[in-house]
Amino acid sequence: MRSSPVPDIVVGRLPLYLRALTQMQAEGKEISSSQELGERLGISSAQIRKDLSQFGEFGKQGTGYNIGYLSDQLKGILKVDRVWDVVLVGVGDLGRALANYAGFLDRGFRIRSVFDNDPKKIGKQAGDFTIQSTADLDKRVRAAGIRVAMLAVPTDDAQGAADQLVEAGIRAILCYAPTSINVPQSVHVQYIDPVLHLQHMTYHVP
Amino acid sequence: MRSSPVPDIVVGRLPLYLRALTQMQAEGKEISSSQELGERLGISSAQIRKDLSQFGEFGKQGTGYNIGYLSDQLKGILKVDRVWDVVLVGVGDLGRALANYAGFLDRGFRIRSVFDNDPKKIGKQAGDFTIQSTADLDKRVRAAGIRVAMLAVPTDDAQGAADQLVEAGIRAILCYAPTSINVPQSVHVQYIDPVLHLQHMTYHVP
Repeated sequence: MRSSPVPDIVVGRLPLYLRALTQMQAEGKEISSSQELGERLGISSAQIRKDLSQFGEFGKQGTGYNIGYLSDQLKGILKVDRVWDVVLVGVGDLGRALANYAGFLDRGFRIRSVFDNDPKKIGKQAGDFTIQSTADLDKRVRAAGIRVAMLAVPTDDAQGAADQLVEAGIRAILCYAPTSINVPQSVHVQYIDPVLHLQHMTYHVP
Repeated sequence: MRSSPVPDIVVGRLPLYLRALTQMQAEGKEISSSQELGERLGISSAQIRKDLSQFGEFGKQGTGYNIGYLSDQLKGILKVDRVWDVVLVGVGDLGRALANYAGFLDRGFRIRSVFDNDPKKIGKQAGDFTIQSTADLDKRVRAAGIRVAMLAVPTDDAQGAADQLVEAGIRAILCYAPTSINVPQSVHVQYIDPVLHLQHMTYHVP
């Protein structure tokens, strides 16, 4: 029904709104406003209203948002009203932390399989998972129809692993390796590199 | 000398340019172009030229950029031509991975001290660090004059720990807790929450 696609920067703020609304729900709140949301997030209320208006009418002027309703709508828009299976590739310190992280499931994601290319790690445990060989990645990912991956391999292995994931049918990669990877246009990539954030901040620190 | 501040979204891309230039240097390249940089990063060459032009003249039309020179300039602009001491608060799985991460030092950051509030962890090792009590955080951070922190505590502890860090003189916080924290305007905060990135991508995955 939309005549033009929503700017990606707007889409990127929706998970932040959803996270804040979920916290409000956990606090027992039922109604909120763009002002209150904005104060929590450090975003202007006008920006929040404008962002949400791209997706529909979620609140009445003067009465605020019903938190449960708006959360459910955002979950539907972001497609996390279901649970996405995720594969994790790379079991170093960070991969191990991700394998143990309990915060994925109630926000729409569940790690299903964990892979590494190090023979010394294959067959060992990482959290609840038995580490599998990347040689089996293609077969397993295809068989399970998994489309989302987290990549926590060293920089030099990142492109090769990304190629393997794309070949296996993965359509979204969260890349923790501090490098840029090349993937087809149909595959989405987001990056997490703490140093980029630290350097961004030191620009501002006197 | 600048008449108006550079938009923060532009500042945020400089670390990405620096990272790509550093990789090119490691590959033995000496000269690059906005086209080549753009292809690596998936950013248009026009955008890169426009971003860099906000900070000065870094290349001659037609001859490209001297990679070493441009890297050095960007390091100076981002203030990572020095090494920033960093405190890490929170030694769960993720904090431990950060304490062990070898990729900070050559990009301008060095973890100096590691804190936790769990009596069972205090005095134990996390990587090369002896975990210290958060009760001593204020004293230690002040004495060392540290201004940058990484916060890897559970959600419910994030605001309290952030308050403590601000009180101790910290001016930049990289927050791994999946929540928003409130700090004074003079303190910079960046967030890393993998689920925000995953949810952003699932919006696009058919």
